[in-house]
Amino acid sequence: MSDNNSLNALIEGLRRLPGVGVKSASRMAFHLLQHDRAGAQLLAQALQQATTQIRHCTRCHTFTEKEVCDTCTDPRRDAAKLCVVETPADQAALERTAAYQGLYFVLMGKLSPLDGIGPKDIGLSKLFERATDGVVQEVILATNFTAEGEATAHVIAEALKARGLKVTRLARGVPAGSELEYVDLGTIAHALVDRR
Amino acid sequence: MSDNNSLNALIEGLRRLPGVGVKSASRMAFHLLQHDRAGAQLLAQALQQATTQIRHCTRCHTFTEKEVCDTCTDPRRDAAKLCVVETPADQAALERTAAYQGLYFVLMGKLSPLDGIGPKDIGLSKLFERATDGVVQEVILATNFTAEGEATAHVIAEALKARGLKVTRLARGVPAGSELEYVDLGTIAHALVDRR
Ligand SMILES: [Zn+2]
Ligand SMILES: [Zn+2]
Repeated sequence: MSDNNSLNALIEGLRRLPGVGVKSASRMAFHLLQHDRAGAQLLAQALQQATTQIRHCTRCHTFTEKEVCDTCTDPRRDAAKLCVVETPADQAALERTAAYQGLYFVLMGKLSPLDGIGPKDIGLSKLFERATDGVVQEVILATNFTAEGEATAHVIAEALKARGLKVTRLARGVPAGSELEYVDLGTIAHALVDRR
Repeated sequence: MSDNNSLNALIEGLRRLPGVGVKSASRMAFHLLQHDRAGAQLLAQALQQATTQIRHCTRCHTFTEKEVCDTCTDPRRDAAKLCVVETPADQAALERTAAYQGLYFVLMGKLSPLDGIGPKDIGLSKLFERATDGVVQEVILATNFTAEGEATAHVIAEALKARGLKVTRLARGVPAGSELEYVDLGTIAHALVDRR
C-alpha cells in the first residue's frame, strides 16, 4: 500500500488515541473507509469543533465552551461546599447520583511524581485560593481511591487544614449490593474503621 | 456538562469507531482535549483527507488514491497468479513475507449470511470475470482460516474450478516456532492431512 499516504496518515492519526495500537488503528481505518465514511466525517468535524471550542472553566477548570461553566453559574448550587475531583468524568459520576448540590474543582489529573505531574499541573494554588475565598466552608475530597488519588487527597487535605478549613473525604466501604464473602479484605477493614 | 455540546459530539463521534464504547470514548476525548489537541487536529485532518481521497482500485478493489493501484500496475508482478484475500490488512501481511510476486483481488469482506453479506457485497462476479480473463492461470485463496473465511474460499473454489481454473488454498499447519504440545488438536490434524 505504498501509494496510500492518506491511509497511512489515518492509521497514524488513530494511533494518537489512548489504548490504540497499530493493529486496532488499521482495523478502525478499514471499518470507517469500508462501512462508515459518514461516521468518519462526523468524527473529523467533532474533533475540529471540540479542539477549537472547548476550554477550561476559569472557576472550576472543567471542560466548557464558556468562560464560566453552567454548574459554576447555577444560583441553586450551594457555594459553601467545594468538591475536588480528578476528571470531568468523575464529576459526571457524582452528578448522576443527584446527592450533591455544591460546587466543584476539577484537578484535570492527579499528583503523579513518576509521570512528572506536580502541584502546578493540577492547579493546586488555584484550588487553595478558591477554597480560602471566605465563601467555601467545606472541601470534599473525591479523588479516586487509588494510590495516586489518595496521595493527592492527602496533600490537599494537609494544605487546607493548615489554612483552617473543614476538609472531608468520600467514605470508603463495602459497595452497595456486595456480599462480604466476595469483597476484598482491605475494603472490609476500611468499612470497619469508618463504621457509623 | 449540559453546556458541552462539542464534548458530547466528540464522544459520540469516537463511538463510531469499532470496539469503542461510551467509557472508552469519554477517556479518549479527555485525553485528546487535556493532553493532545495537536493529535486531535491531526486525526481530524487525516479523517477528512482519507474519506475524500481513498477509493477502491478498479482492478483489485484494494484501497488506493489512484484509479488503479501501484501493485496492479507494477510490471514486475506475475499476472498469471491471482491471490484472493479478505482485507487490505491481509494483503499487507502477505506482502511482508516477500514470498509472493503475483497480483491480488481484495474481497473487502467475506461471505457472512448472518450479517447479510452476500456474493455481491464482496464483488464475486468481478472476481470471476477477472480470473477468467485468459491471463490468470492460478487463483490462490488466502481468506482467513475462520468458519466464514473457509466458507468464502469454498464458494469461490467451486465456482472457479467449474470454469476450469487451477485453484489453490494456503496450507494449514503448525505455526513456525510452535511446540506440538501447545498446538490445538484441529491444527495438528490438518497438518497431518496436509503433510508433504
Ligand atoms: Zn466551572
Ligand atoms: Zn489494484
